Amino acid sequence: MQFGDGLFETLAVVSNQPCLWDYHMQRLQQGCKRLSIIAPEAQLLEREAGQLVGGERQAVLKITITRGMSERGYMPTADSPPTRILSLFAWDGPSTENIKIAVSSRRLGSNPQLAGIKHLNRLDQVLACMECADDVQEALMLDQYNHVIEGMMSNLFFQRGQKLFTPSLTDSGVDGVVRQFILDRAKQQRLEIITGTFTLDQVLQSDALYLSSSLGGIRFVSEVVGHAWQPSASFHPLLRDIAADIFS
Amino acid sequence: MQFGDGLFETLAVVSNQPCLWDYHMQRLQQGCKRLSIIAPEAQLLEREAGQLVGGERQAVLKITITRGMSERGYMPTADSPPTRILSLFAWDGPSTENIKIAVSSRRLGSNPQLAGIKHLNRLDQVLACMECADDVQEALMLDQYNHVIEGMMSNLFFQRGQKLFTPSLTDSGVDGVVRQFILDRAKQQRLEIITGTFTLDQVLQSDALYLSSSLGGIRFVSEVVGHAWQPSASFHPLLRDIAADIFS
Repeated sequence: MQFGDGLFETLAVVSNQPCLWDYHMQRLQQGCKRLSIIAPEAQLLEREAGQLVGGERQAVLKITITRGMSERGYMPTADSPPTRILSLFAWDGPSTENIKIAVSSRRLGSNPQLAGIKHLNRLDQVLACMECADDVQEALMLDQYNHVIEGMMSNLFFQRGQKLFTPSLTDSGVDGVVRQFILDRAKQQRLEIITGTFTLDQVLQSDALYLSSSLGGIRFVSEVVGHAWQPSASFHPLLRDIAADIFS
Repeated sequence: MQFGDGLFETLAVVSNQPCLWDYHMQRLQQGCKRLSIIAPEAQLLEREAGQLVGGERQAVLKITITRGMSERGYMPTADSPPTRILSLFAWDGPSTENIKIAVSSRRLGSNPQLAGIKHLNRLDQVLACMECADDVQEALMLDQYNHVIEGMMSNLFFQRGQKLFTPSLTDSGVDGVVRQFILDRAKQQRLEIITGTFTLDQVLQSDALYLSSSLGGIRFVSEVVGHAWQPSASFHPLLRDIAADIFS
């Protein structure tokens, strides 16, 4: 914990069930592999999560895995088992309102070896959140090369005509569970979503912007503070369908 | 603590005194400023450190400052005071032996907004330490642009003829307390130390390599594993003088 040496998952709990459980577990396993942390047994986590969630109709379940106890210094203690922390928080449920976002002045660090996974080194996100005005719920974050990567706590999709795009996450960013759910569903329906590197200008030439996250689902952006952009398309039918399935 | 949202200092305690106290406090204050954390009062920290160090002839004092308690999510709780953690560890004292080092295959993330400060987002260092062979005490770390930045837990100086060089830390790396002490002392003695960006080839064309840190002082490198380099100069007189003063 002293060096952010671990991973976490934040799950929506709806009708006593953690949503997208398999997706969260898959990302957690992959993150453990990337960080060389011994992954917790899936069945054990499922049992513990089940006990904690119990009769909670609606809540947020947070699962944190750290490399384990250690003394001073960066070198982990060889035989220390990983630590599991499961905690439950009250939650009002997903909002379906459109959101007003900003563009953060904070830049994401570039770090291909850590990109994609949901590790605990999150100073970029904390500092970006702190600078946000009260009436703004999210902010786009750019990387060191002037590419738009994601929201502070969500992934970005954007639309031109009927085509959908999402930034590549090879250098920075978190590969969100809902992002992966969207990409899988699009593939099943043989609809291509184009992954690439995009500047802010390119993103703001789009007809619609969406932010996806485990607690927010897929949210439609109504305004980008400080920019003349506004949506010229309505909610993409594919994304609307998927959005309905995230919390069910 | 859940997002590595804080700073730390590791101080050598010798003859009941924390070494380079003013340098550590200055860096901690600067780090707090950069992260918008309310810095602890210097007098308070000094008193608490004094109580903890007490009659310890030789030890390591670690001071960790976090933004404070918070619930779930990246947004800090507005009125939560920062957390101070002071802890004391046994220590054998600085070693004066030459060290054998490697070159890490891990690359430091590039993040100018976090570069220089000793924050708690240290996955790069933990992962680099884990890959190191047992007989190697340190490893040089390169950044995303193929420049050598520092050791895993130390700063790098290198020597060509009588000239001294050290990597710039504007994109990544930690601005070490001993590094700053060396730069200040060199300035007092009107000896220029050249700061810049250097490739591994350039570093390995040097006559001598040194790694500086709070617990290691200034250590002379005898070997770089996997490279034909070996020192062709003896300990630079300026660095030898400074090394003697770090723990006194």
